[in-house]
Amino acid sequence: MQVEGKPTRTIWLNDDGWSVGIIDQTKLPFRFECTSLKTLDDVAKAIADMQVRGAPLIGATAAYGMALAMRVKASDVALKEAVRILLATRPTAVNLRWALDNMATHLENLPESERVTAAYSRAGAIADEDSAQNEAIGRHGLPLLKTIYERKVAKGPVNLLTHCNAGWLATVDWGTALSPVYLAHDTGIPVHVWVDETRPRNQGAGLTAWELGQHGVPYTVIVDNAGGHLMQKGEVDLCIVGSDRTTGEGDVCNKIGTYLKALAAFDNDVPFYVALPGTTIDWQLKDGVQSIPIEERDGAEVATITGRDTKGDLTTVQLTPTESSVLNIAFDVTPSRLVTGLITERGLTKASSEGLEALYPEQRSQKEKVG
Amino acid sequence: MQVEGKPTRTIWLNDDGWSVGIIDQTKLPFRFECTSLKTLDDVAKAIADMQVRGAPLIGATAAYGMALAMRVKASDVALKEAVRILLATRPTAVNLRWALDNMATHLENLPESERVTAAYSRAGAIADEDSAQNEAIGRHGLPLLKTIYERKVAKGPVNLLTHCNAGWLATVDWGTALSPVYLAHDTGIPVHVWVDETRPRNQGAGLTAWELGQHGVPYTVIVDNAGGHLMQKGEVDLCIVGSDRTTGEGDVCNKIGTYLKALAAFDNDVPFYVALPGTTIDWQLKDGVQSIPIEERDGAEVATITGRDTKGDLTTVQLTPTESSVLNIAFDVTPSRLVTGLITERGLTKASSEGLEALYPEQRSQKEKVG
Repeated sequence: MQVEGKPTRTIWLNDDGWSVGIIDQTKLPFRFECTSLKTLDDVAKAIADMQVRGAPLIGATAAYGMALAMRVKASDVALKEAVRILLATRPTAVNLRWALDNMATHLENLPESERVTAAYSRAGAIADEDSAQNEAIGRHGLPLLKTIYERKVAKGPVNLLTHCNAGWLATVDWGTALSPVYLAHDTGIPVHVWVDETRPRNQGAGLTAWELGQHGVPYTVIVDNAGGHLMQKGEVDLCIVGSDRTTGEGDVCNKIGTYLKALAAFDNDVPFYVALPGTTIDWQLKDGVQSIPIEERDGAEVATITGRDTKGDLTTVQLTPTESSVLNIAFDVTPSRLVTGLITERGLTKASSEGLEALYPEQRSQKEKVG
Repeated sequence: MQVEGKPTRTIWLNDDGWSVGIIDQTKLPFRFECTSLKTLDDVAKAIADMQVRGAPLIGATAAYGMALAMRVKASDVALKEAVRILLATRPTAVNLRWALDNMATHLENLPESERVTAAYSRAGAIADEDSAQNEAIGRHGLPLLKTIYERKVAKGPVNLLTHCNAGWLATVDWGTALSPVYLAHDTGIPVHVWVDETRPRNQGAGLTAWELGQHGVPYTVIVDNAGGHLMQKGEVDLCIVGSDRTTGEGDVCNKIGTYLKALAAFDNDVPFYVALPGTTIDWQLKDGVQSIPIEERDGAEVATITGRDTKGDLTTVQLTPTESSVLNIAFDVTPSRLVTGLITERGLTKASSEGLEALYPEQRSQKEKVG
């Protein structure tokens, strides 16, 4: 997507042909700074410190981390060690494990001498596949926005609400939830996005707002509390959010607060869609609310917040009384009954095992084999 | 309630017998500072700048503002002018109008020479009545907490969730939503409060957390996004919130985000109660979602946030990209169908016209007269 008028991805191979460029997302939305990753440790640190974040981008970055590790030593031991180090950076990210398994399986069958070249090539393919997959999500979601726009009596923009950042910054390009938005905007359908600020880490106010603004898509930042009221007042035509993990039955684990928006959408007959690549589906899990383990993060993310002070510097301020007890739950689970549909790279489907298995029949045959 | 171990109210007559003491609530939770109001303008400024906030406390402060105005000039013209100035400070506050009407009616029938004394006496009575009324709300809400505690198999504390600040800081003493909490705590029922931080102004993280902590009630601050997840996990036994305005049919206008918590409570069979004094009921309004006018406030409250920096100073930081469009809606309306019950100074009742008219029969007879 566009940054300062230029097509940009979140990760790329630098002109030197081996080091890896990323956007340092911890500086956004105030500074657009790129940085080079040159070692396995650089990559592990970039993921752990959330300079890159979002399940698909973490996966692609880890894949390049494997390539950088192979440059130093391409033995079986080094390969296993690189997987171990990278896997530990964000233990709950499903795509991270998927990308590392993919890289390891691919590399361990090759002679050591071929592993570096193969690793770069495979990492590049993972990045390209992610971009293509997300563009496909956009194509499958686009008709939803088109239909709403055509039915609008007053011909105003399609008002879409999203939570957290499931835009291109969370992926290699296009994004998941925002991919249909970019495609609609680029094809001339007027869109306006209500951006939940998404406490505690404010990925909405910081990242979603920034990337929409850079690409020229109109948006308005709101507090997480406001979405229900806007839906009651008819100001939201549809919701699209991303997913960190989806059960085979269509329950959606996403950023904390997603469930509240799904409830409000259901109460006001606003369509609530979840955009996701098939790689984030966890086919083994039943009953997402009960079974998906939820990450608890450092309470400081609730007790404090970081923004730009009047001098232009990033400053962290405390919001709660000093002795305050705080709890920081990172995700919640939206039951499939509240989800109008899933937008995947293979098409639109119902949030149910029937719906998902129709799109991913290879999973059904695998289940039958196990059965 | 207790501050630094001493019983404290939010407003009082100073020892000089005429100036009015308040807690400067804009400094909380970081500094406990009191300030003296000596003129009508001081009072108008304290209300407009939200040094005092919360419908009942605004009413009581405005009443003292009338007394301070009468000290300077007690003519009919001065009286009307004082009402006009005070009414303009927070145009949507129902209690403000109620208190000023009450004062004006009382004073205009008296000779000028008696107005100063009468104004102080009436303002004091309004403050005392508010405290007594809130204590009554606490008494009527207490059995709800007691019953939950007695039914708990594991005998842990009653876990209550509240939104915004409807504690004693919003009133003269006791608070509305928190009055049953203080009473339960003081009578030995273990209570733990989940405190929604309540963006954009963070009255939860700042004020509710502070006042609960000062009184010794255990609490945990959470982001507004977290309540739904906690209810799904059985971590919330009941919700109690306040109300800025309640229709005669039981629809509740309260701080933005209340509606989302009511939806989550309904979805998880968690009792959702609203505590309110009868003075905040607007008997003329039907269909709260459609008819209650909702205040839109300065977008800077969303785009920025104020907290304490590492030097201990209050600092405001920007959270959104500079060119960002923001919307700041102050309240939302929770339809009565999502409200388990109302806790008033006259008792518990259903959120319905039947329920409310049974408690306030004088309203029914008034309606019949009009009809």
